[in-house]
Amino acid sequence: MTTLDTIGEFGLINRIQNGAAPAVQPGTVRGIGDDAAVFALNDTEFGLIATDMLLEGIHFDLTYVPLKHLGYKAVAINVSDIAAMNGLPTQITVGIGLSSRFTVEAVDELYAGIRAACEAYNLDLVGGDTTSSRSGLVISVSVLGSVPKDKITYRNTAQANDVVCVTGDLGSAYLGLQLLEREKQEYLANPDMQPNLSEERAYLIQRQLRPDARTDMVHELRDLDVLPTAMIDISDGLASELLHICRQSGTGAVIFDENIPIDDQAQLTATEFGISPITAALNGGEDYELLFTIRPQEFEKLKNHPRITAIGYLTADPAQTVLATRAGQQTPLKAQGWGQM
Amino acid sequence: MTTLDTIGEFGLINRIQNGAAPAVQPGTVRGIGDDAAVFALNDTEFGLIATDMLLEGIHFDLTYVPLKHLGYKAVAINVSDIAAMNGLPTQITVGIGLSSRFTVEAVDELYAGIRAACEAYNLDLVGGDTTSSRSGLVISVSVLGSVPKDKITYRNTAQANDVVCVTGDLGSAYLGLQLLEREKQEYLANPDMQPNLSEERAYLIQRQLRPDARTDMVHELRDLDVLPTAMIDISDGLASELLHICRQSGTGAVIFDENIPIDDQAQLTATEFGISPITAALNGGEDYELLFTIRPQEFEKLKNHPRITAIGYLTADPAQTVLATRAGQQTPLKAQGWGQM
Repeated sequence: MTTLDTIGEFGLINRIQNGAAPAVQPGTVRGIGDDAAVFALNDTEFGLIATDMLLEGIHFDLTYVPLKHLGYKAVAINVSDIAAMNGLPTQITVGIGLSSRFTVEAVDELYAGIRAACEAYNLDLVGGDTTSSRSGLVISVSVLGSVPKDKITYRNTAQANDVVCVTGDLGSAYLGLQLLEREKQEYLANPDMQPNLSEERAYLIQRQLRPDARTDMVHELRDLDVLPTAMIDISDGLASELLHICRQSGTGAVIFDENIPIDDQAQLTATEFGISPITAALNGGEDYELLFTIRPQEFEKLKNHPRITAIGYLTADPAQTVLATRAGQQTPLKAQGWGQM
Repeated sequence: MTTLDTIGEFGLINRIQNGAAPAVQPGTVRGIGDDAAVFALNDTEFGLIATDMLLEGIHFDLTYVPLKHLGYKAVAINVSDIAAMNGLPTQITVGIGLSSRFTVEAVDELYAGIRAACEAYNLDLVGGDTTSSRSGLVISVSVLGSVPKDKITYRNTAQANDVVCVTGDLGSAYLGLQLLEREKQEYLANPDMQPNLSEERAYLIQRQLRPDARTDMVHELRDLDVLPTAMIDISDGLASELLHICRQSGTGAVIFDENIPIDDQAQLTATEFGISPITAALNGGEDYELLFTIRPQEFEKLKNHPRITAIGYLTADPAQTVLATRAGQQTPLKAQGWGQM
């Protein structure tokens, strides 16, 4: 008997992927191994499908997560997988498992968040499943999307010398979680206290509780006429996602720590918690920004974009995946999420 | 505050459906309210998507459910939703939540069942999500499928005088569950006992543990050139499903109890448990047979089919949804699952 800890989540996914039979459906374009699966849709577009599950006690703590935000997030993290294929979402299905402690009003709140996300991402809620649960709230979302055939962007098509870019800033969602967890502990120690989440930290909290998928960037890249050579969304942390691109594309990477975009509040909060801001960005996860690579000659087109940052480049040596410091020191990148399976 | 019990599962689904915004995507053909949602695929076919979730302690008991069968069933019940639209499945995604008590070997068994179902239904496993779970096994499957535009079959398009037909036999899955539950209680009372599930009962057990979706019937109806006027799969019991068709089509129905197909073992076992076999068929659920309606003039084409049974007809009066006995007595049909939310 082998425990799941022995092989880890990625080990398990590899095992499932390796065990999968070859595709039998002519409409299956790409299966397990990217942010979304790809299927034949019509003459000009591919269809996309992705699925993500959120379980109470693992992915969220209802002590401080409002149900409306949770509904929104459950949709956003799925849409993020479609954006990572350079596609746009079209429909979702939602399966929920509810224990008897949930009221109709609580379910209404959850669906208000789901509907808000449907509106924000211009997609339709078309179906799903509701069931009772013995053990807290379970939310499983599947999202359909589409992408023009000539725009689809996989993980395994990056090349040496490509410029590595990220959207937005990194580490904020993780630091928002630290703030919420600290408040919870203080509340448990002294239930009479008032929450002490300052206005200035609101951004970090929002990044954790109600992240947005970067479909705006999919539109902007099309407007800028930039086609990434590879793309992935940052759900498990920059290091883990970059290693996916490198492993699947057969490249190495050099990332400059001083280039990693980190919000000012995140810098301050990381210091307060005694965490390196760079570590929060590399391993924190849940930022749902896009990590993508472009040919060097494309860089001119987006070098002045306020929400896209070049953080390094790819190399031909798959053994070289490193973080380079200002002082010229190089340390290997490691995928280490916090507390994930 | 309103408890979920107050409105029930169908009340909750209606609430979600009524709260849903009008479709914004031109590719959304049909949303919540049928076995699967329908989306634009190509010139000749519609795309289909359905999702179903199985939770430990609600939908299955690992004391007697082998993981391989469970994996198969999780796929089959989703495929059944595609068959109910007169479509065929093409791809699935699988999300699983696993608590730490599961071993790698256990997960392998589960996926062996999933793969066996993929092979049986000629579909591809293209993606999913694996996560840890605080609370037992969670399996969420989404299935994609397709159906020729001129063959799609909804629930709300039946007409008065249509003949009501079912495939296979009904009540067996529920009686299989009763046998398994009885064995479990006997085992708990006396752990040294040997299981006493006779060969003759194997059919009922198999109907509960490893049901099959009736994609074969989708093929056969096409071969017979029969296009149902409405169709639904029997997951919650014949009564509940027939009432869905009647309510959504604005018809009534008369069903003859002596025509309801019930297996000989099911008859015997029902009697043994002091349950009416007809009640098991009407309310037992989990048979995953197809319930469909056809125009009366089509009946000739399938009246000799060994696995299709005509059980009644639809009427113009929506208030008349009744079970008629041999003696001419009529009792109203009621949707009453056993212990569902």
